[in-house]
Parts: sequence; structure tokens; C-alpha cells
Amino acid sequence: MQLVVPVSGSDPKTRLSAVLTPAERREFTEAMLADVLSALRGAGHSPSVVATAPVACAAPVTVDERGLDELINALLAEADGELAVVMADLPLLRPSTVEALFEPDAGVVLVPGIGGGTNAFVSRHPAFRVDYHGASIRDHRRNAREAGASVTEVDSRRLATDVDEPKDLAEVLLHSDGAAADWLRDAGFELVVDDGRVTAERA
Amino acid sequence: MQLVVPVSGSDPKTRLSAVLTPAERREFTEAMLADVLSALRGAGHSPSVVATAPVACAAPVTVDERGLDELINALLAEADGELAVVMADLPLLRPSTVEALFEPDAGVVLVPGIGGGTNAFVSRHPAFRVDYHGASIRDHRRNAREAGASVTEVDSRRLATDVDEPKDLAEVLLHSDGAAADWLRDAGFELVVDDGRVTAERA
Repeated sequence: MQLVVPVSGSDPKTRLSAVLTPAERREFTEAMLADVLSALRGAGHSPSVVATAPVACAAPVTVDERGLDELINALLAEADGELAVVMADLPLLRPSTVEALFEPDAGVVLVPGIGGGTNAFVSRHPAFRVDYHGASIRDHRRNAREAGASVTEVDSRRLATDVDEPKDLAEVLLHSDGAAADWLRDAGFELVVDDGRVTAERA
Repeated sequence: MQLVVPVSGSDPKTRLSAVLTPAERREFTEAMLADVLSALRGAGHSPSVVATAPVACAAPVTVDERGLDELINALLAEADGELAVVMADLPLLRPSTVEALFEPDAGVVLVPGIGGGTNAFVSRHPAFRVDYHGASIRDHRRNAREAGASVTEVDSRRLATDVDEPKDLAEVLLHSDGAAADWLRDAGFELVVDDGRVTAERA
């Protein structure tokens, strides 16, 4: 089964603009992508990357400027619905997490992100299609049901933790020692505990 | 093994004050507790509740005004370290999630919450003790190691999702149809998608 990692190569992770410069956001995006690719390969997969602009990574990259829905739905149609997609901003992934994603024997396996997104899916059903806008996990549950596919979800904090906002950086420092965590530490970020809340802040 | 659910009975969930009155926070706290107890019993356990003030629930309740660390460490000492603790604000729990918590055969099994807390643990080691202040998952990893216990962690979004802040309410509506979700719907909360972010708002 084809396994695709979509990534924004042009102006990624704009919601991190308050703490990272544009160049830093690109570097950090590539570090997170490296962690995701490493986990996927560690679980025996051969992922390919589809990016809106060139990115540096240890996998074949196709540059494709189409929006995410159009791109993934074209790939689904070409592959008769046999496709796995894992987002590029999941730096907590481990090979064992990836194995859990591919374990369920369902027509469509969905992985919710914190906040209602869909951080990964495995489709084995010809009629499944995606719609990443809004609370996409609800739409994907409905799309899969309406396609007549059996649906299951994977319960994983590591797969659910996509890094979009400054508060998410603490999760990387708390739960990873991969490339993204290294990049944050090299950039001067450290965990700060204040009033019972944990944040990643630049020293 | 004794399984304890600690809960604040007096003025619970103060970080939800912006959206819930004090009486509503108590009701919602009891609804979340009902979901947790239901999942624990569904997995074959007989939990008991320790509350700082009386709470309504379908389990034996002990009222104990001690702070969380003092309370849990006293229970650990009494039980020679054989104790499981599951927090009361985890309304996404299911019996299968609870089974995953008790599956690993380690001296100390830790469950990180989003944000660095420790949402549940299973201890089978006489020297393990807790310290819930700050980024407690880091302290508990260290405490377990220093006690000489084998340590493992359970990777579960459902166990990681503790409900503390208004943004967390969306997770309940997205991923549960239990008592807490019912309570929110009856109180007029519904999912609102705005600019790609999902929130639970009162109609």
C-alpha cells in the first residue's frame, strides 16, 4: 500500500509565527518530517512525501501545489482507495505507534488529532474520500460510513499530537528525543513550569 | 489491586469558570466521574472514590481533605506500593482503554496527560511515590527509576485527554456519548467550527 506524507513546503506552520521566524519554521518542519519518516521506516514502510514546495528529507519528494483535499482524493482515486496518509507534524511518532495504525483490519482506519483533525488514515475501500476542512474527523467518519466501509479508530496520544501552536512544543520536549526535540533544544527552547502549566520557552 | 479515583468535591474545575457556574462545574464533574467509573467497572474493576468533599457517584466514596500528593502517597505506603490511580476528569475513557492501562507487566505504568500531567498510573513497586506538581510525568518517570522499578507508559489519547479548560470540552463532544457529553449537550453546548478550529460553545 502506498504511504504518503503530505507537507507544506512554502510557508509552513504559520501558527508558530509568534515564536519562530519563517526560516526557523521551515527548519522545524523538516525536523518533524524527519521524525515521522524515521518512525514509518522503522515500522518497515517506504513512505513518499508530497510537498507544496521542495523540502529536504530522506524520502522521495513530489512537489504538487494542489490543495490537500484535491491531492489526497486524486491519490485515493488512482489507487482504488488503497492508500495510507500520515501527517508530517507528528514528531512523537515511534515505530510501535505506526504498527498500531496498520494493525486494525478495517476498510478505513482513522486517527483523530487533538482538536478534531484527522492526523492519519489507512484506507482499503475504493469509495473513501477526504475532506480536511473543519472538524475533519467527523466528516471522515461519515464519509467512510456512507462509502459502506467498516470504520475503526486508533487511540494514540502520539498520533493525536500534531504540532501547530506554541503550546504544542512542550509535548515535543516532554515526549521525544528525536530530530524535532533536538532542533528545539538547539534553538534554546526548554520546559518551563508555571502555575501548574508546562510550556516550552526560549531561554 | 486497589483502584482509586481522586476527585475534588468542593470547588472543582475552576479553569472552567469562564463557561460554567459553580453549580454547573460540580454537576459536570460528577458526570465525568460517572463516565470514568463506568469504564473502570466495564473493564472488571471495583474502583473507590476519594473526594475532598461529598460527591454523588455509583461507587464507595471516602471524604479526605488531604492534598493529592499526601493522600496518594499514604495509600501507596499502606498498600506496599500496590495501587492504581485514575483521575476523575477523563470522560473519554472506555473499558478497552482501561484494559490497555492494566496490560503492561511493569513495576510502574504511567499515563501522560496532554500538558505534562499524569492522568493515571499502576504501581506494583513498594518504593514508588507521587509528586503531582508541575510537569508530573517527568517527576514520576524519575521517581520510578530512582525506586528501581521497571517503567513503561501507555500511549492513549483517551487517557491523555483530561478536561480542564473550555477548549477541552470539544474533545468530549467529538469523542464521547457518555454522561459528560450528555450533560454538555443538555446544557446547550455544541461544536462550532471556526477558521479550522473546533470549539464547544453554548448556543
